[in-house]
Amino acid sequence: MTAGEIAELLGGRLEGDPGREISQASDLRSAQSDQIAFATGDEALRMAAQSVVGCLLVAENAPALNGRTVIRVPKPRKAFARVLQILHPPDRPPPGVHSTAVIAESAVLDEGVSIGPHVTIADAVRIGEDTVIEAGVSIGRGVTIGSRCWLYPRVVVYHGVEIGDRVILHAGCVLGADGFGYELDSSGHEKFPQLGSVRIGNDVEIGSNSCVDRAALAMTEIGDGSKLDNMVHVAHNCIIGKHVVIAAQTGLSGGCIIGDNALIGGQVGMGDKVRVEAGAILGSGCGVLPHKVVPAGEPYWGTPARPLREYLKGLAALRRLPKVLRELRELQAHAKDDTPE
Amino acid sequence: MTAGEIAELLGGRLEGDPGREISQASDLRSAQSDQIAFATGDEALRMAAQSVVGCLLVAENAPALNGRTVIRVPKPRKAFARVLQILHPPDRPPPGVHSTAVIAESAVLDEGVSIGPHVTIADAVRIGEDTVIEAGVSIGRGVTIGSRCWLYPRVVVYHGVEIGDRVILHAGCVLGADGFGYELDSSGHEKFPQLGSVRIGNDVEIGSNSCVDRAALAMTEIGDGSKLDNMVHVAHNCIIGKHVVIAAQTGLSGGCIIGDNALIGGQVGMGDKVRVEAGAILGSGCGVLPHKVVPAGEPYWGTPARPLREYLKGLAALRRLPKVLRELRELQAHAKDDTPE
Amino acid sequence: MTAGEIAELLGGRLEGDPGREISQASDLRSAQSDQIAFATGDEALRMAAQSVVGCLLVAENAPALNGRTVIRVPKPRKAFARVLQILHPPDRPPPGVHSTAVIAESAVLDEGVSIGPHVTIADAVRIGEDTVIEAGVSIGRGVTIGSRCWLYPRVVVYHGVEIGDRVILHAGCVLGADGFGYELDSSGHEKFPQLGSVRIGNDVEIGSNSCVDRAALAMTEIGDGSKLDNMVHVAHNCIIGKHVVIAAQTGLSGGCIIGDNALIGGQVGMGDKVRVEAGAILGSGCGVLPHKVVPAGEPYWGTPARPLREYLKGLAALRRLPKVLRELRELQAHAKDDTPE
Repeated sequence: MTAGEIAELLGGRLEGDPGREISQASDLRSAQSDQIAFATGDEALRMAAQSVVGCLLVAENAPALNGRTVIRVPKPRKAFARVLQILHPPDRPPPGVHSTAVIAESAVLDEGVSIGPHVTIADAVRIGEDTVIEAGVSIGRGVTIGSRCWLYPRVVVYHGVEIGDRVILHAGCVLGADGFGYELDSSGHEKFPQLGSVRIGNDVEIGSNSCVDRAALAMTEIGDGSKLDNMVHVAHNCIIGKHVVIAAQTGLSGGCIIGDNALIGGQVGMGDKVRVEAGAILGSGCGVLPHKVVPAGEPYWGTPARPLREYLKGLAALRRLPKVLRELRELQAHAKDDTPE
Repeated sequence: MTAGEIAELLGGRLEGDPGREISQASDLRSAQSDQIAFATGDEALRMAAQSVVGCLLVAENAPALNGRTVIRVPKPRKAFARVLQILHPPDRPPPGVHSTAVIAESAVLDEGVSIGPHVTIADAVRIGEDTVIEAGVSIGRGVTIGSRCWLYPRVVVYHGVEIGDRVILHAGCVLGADGFGYELDSSGHEKFPQLGSVRIGNDVEIGSNSCVDRAALAMTEIGDGSKLDNMVHVAHNCIIGKHVVIAAQTGLSGGCIIGDNALIGGQVGMGDKVRVEAGAILGSGCGVLPHKVVPAGEPYWGTPARPLREYLKGLAALRRLPKVLRELRELQAHAKDDTPE
Repeated sequence: MTAGEIAELLGGRLEGDPGREISQASDLRSAQSDQIAFATGDEALRMAAQSVVGCLLVAENAPALNGRTVIRVPKPRKAFARVLQILHPPDRPPPGVHSTAVIAESAVLDEGVSIGPHVTIADAVRIGEDTVIEAGVSIGRGVTIGSRCWLYPRVVVYHGVEIGDRVILHAGCVLGADGFGYELDSSGHEKFPQLGSVRIGNDVEIGSNSCVDRAALAMTEIGDGSKLDNMVHVAHNCIIGKHVVIAAQTGLSGGCIIGDNALIGGQVGMGDKVRVEAGAILGSGCGVLPHKVVPAGEPYWGTPARPLREYLKGLAALRRLPKVLRELRELQAHAKDDTPE
């Protein structure tokens, strides 16, 4: 592919040699003369001036880079993400069903579906076109999966779960296991059967070994475009909106509601029925008390989670605390001296 | 099933139409005329008055609901859990061994056992009657599993683990992997072989992708009726009592001892050899220092974990801290003004 | 094996009966007359005096244990670890490929490799001699695995990952899944394709259900001899040095660099690009802010992570806070009384 062709695909403005052959994308540090990279910020632009990189994505207002082939775009990093997708498409396995897969007769596989070795697909499953199901995946009865999804090895989908289009599920993630519900009792805990299910929207990506539990009676939902990292726990009856981002090892207790475009850090913990408003931001490691409402605007931090400024103010006060205690002792001594006895 | 038959099974007192046909259980909000729900609390009872629900489980002393079919029981939620089990029994796969399963000749499967596709069962394994082993489960040499258990897809049980009756293991959980033991050394860490095993009592349920490690020399144990949520980590040599509840993503370091009926929140972390007394309560996200004893009575919270009242007092003091520092500055200024120089 | 033979293998000094037959290793508490145990510390030595244990590993300067067969060594616990390895070697499955495994023609398996049931091995994979691949493991295209490794059931290795010699991967762990990278955008989050890979050194052990993500463009690395516990998350582009120990449920965000011999507790969270210096110690549950450098020397604790002494000082001040607030109120009242109005 030439630099000129890439510029055209991106709708960017080319400077330099449009015929330059580009075969790979790379990071700026190790880029070779047949590779494309991106540079934003002064340091990266300085490094770019030294590099032998074949073509460079830069911002529209970046300084001139004499003698280089550059493509000017509004968002170089985003343009680079697209170049990566074009130059390095994922290595799609060919369509077809591997001979070792066990597929129920009542399952319906649309055109172009690829089913790997040792896959199990139960009754009444429906899988949309061009979806890839890798080795050892297990799909329960009545599950529906949209088109162009990709399920990596050892994913488990329990019965009845609904999955949209272009969903990516990484290895070992589990959708639709029973929610954690019991009637606690001195004579033993009675299981509260979990009869609901899980609905995953379009363009969702879920990381390795993450778990999304089925609802008790209704639906646990993850909205279109939301992205969950590895080992995220979503308990029964949570409703996660659209384009939500949740980093690794975060856990949501039962019935949490997360608004669209919320950003949630890693290792966050939420109690039951927390409500995170659309666009809200939760810092990594924070703990949100049950039934709490987290508003948009200022990020929330700490445990119990509170507005960042308040958290920082408390932290600063805490840092000064040992010194303050000493000063207080002096004041007390002083007051005692003053006191007529 | 009729409302009268349900009342009889529950030992409840029926008011209204005993012949009312009930085909499903539902939540109160979406309940239809052939469905049963439960209502506790004023708000739910008000909602019930508006609902078309076919039959309602209420407390024995709940107000009259004129013109409705109700069943009065001591604990409506617990009765509802039982109704769910009766009206919606899990969809049990038929007994038998799938042709793709690999079963050692020396394994003994009792009557009614169901083995799914791509299961691996090693030598000298013994599985009790009516137990379900789903797709892709791997059972190591010498494992014993009781009757009426349910192992969901991709569960891994290492060699020698002992599992009681009616145990539920959700997808991806791992029992009996090596405990994390090394002899640390400047020349490299020498593995301390883990020769013990894991013993799981009756009526235990363990969530998806949870890990229970084998003991170094003795047994890691989980007592009868205990329930672990998703992604719980139980290190080597832990002894968990009966009817203990542990929420998601909690981690127990080596050699912790948890008394019967303890309640442990999510994302709790325990150091080595913590002892949690019977009936103790640990709030979500708290961190317990090694060798600490957590008594029953008041719940424990925070890091390092301490009695809830103490934690709350500290938190309140912390909130007032910035204001207090300002006041202290004023006092210091005041003292300075007073000081004769 | 006799006590004399064991003493010779360990290079230890035997006292008592060199012909004593030892068939098993055990903990001191339950040791029998044909078993070997170790004893360090006064309490253990007192217990040893009462025990029927057949042979005892003790420190070189331990007091005399009359009438007992003991082996004196510099480090009894380390010597015991070696005895465990000798007396209880892991039960290695025989070499060969199970008939249900699916192996690409272009894969190269060296001598002595053991491949279990339902394993999937893709194109151009290379596996070194005497490596064990257990049931249901999935190995992606172009992966290389060294000699004498052990992959427990259901491990997933994505394409292109490089694994050294004598590496142990426990059940359900996932190497090489996509890093969590998106271009966030109001119109949806664009996936940043993850084209790098993962390189695992020699003698590494990784716990059950842990996840090590592939780098965006370069390599995520884990150095020789490092040990990761269960459910550890290593994000894209992390570089972990040699002989690092990371306890369970710890999470590293993207681009963290961990120096050799660092010790990292359980449930630790690190922000992006944290640098932990060689030999540094991070206490369990601590949270490290992005870009922070953690030096060697004093352990770091708490959130945000800080030197242990500072953390403890803050904690002590915090404990005194409610009392201090009362004293401050008294001082204020006193100051008011003093003030002429």
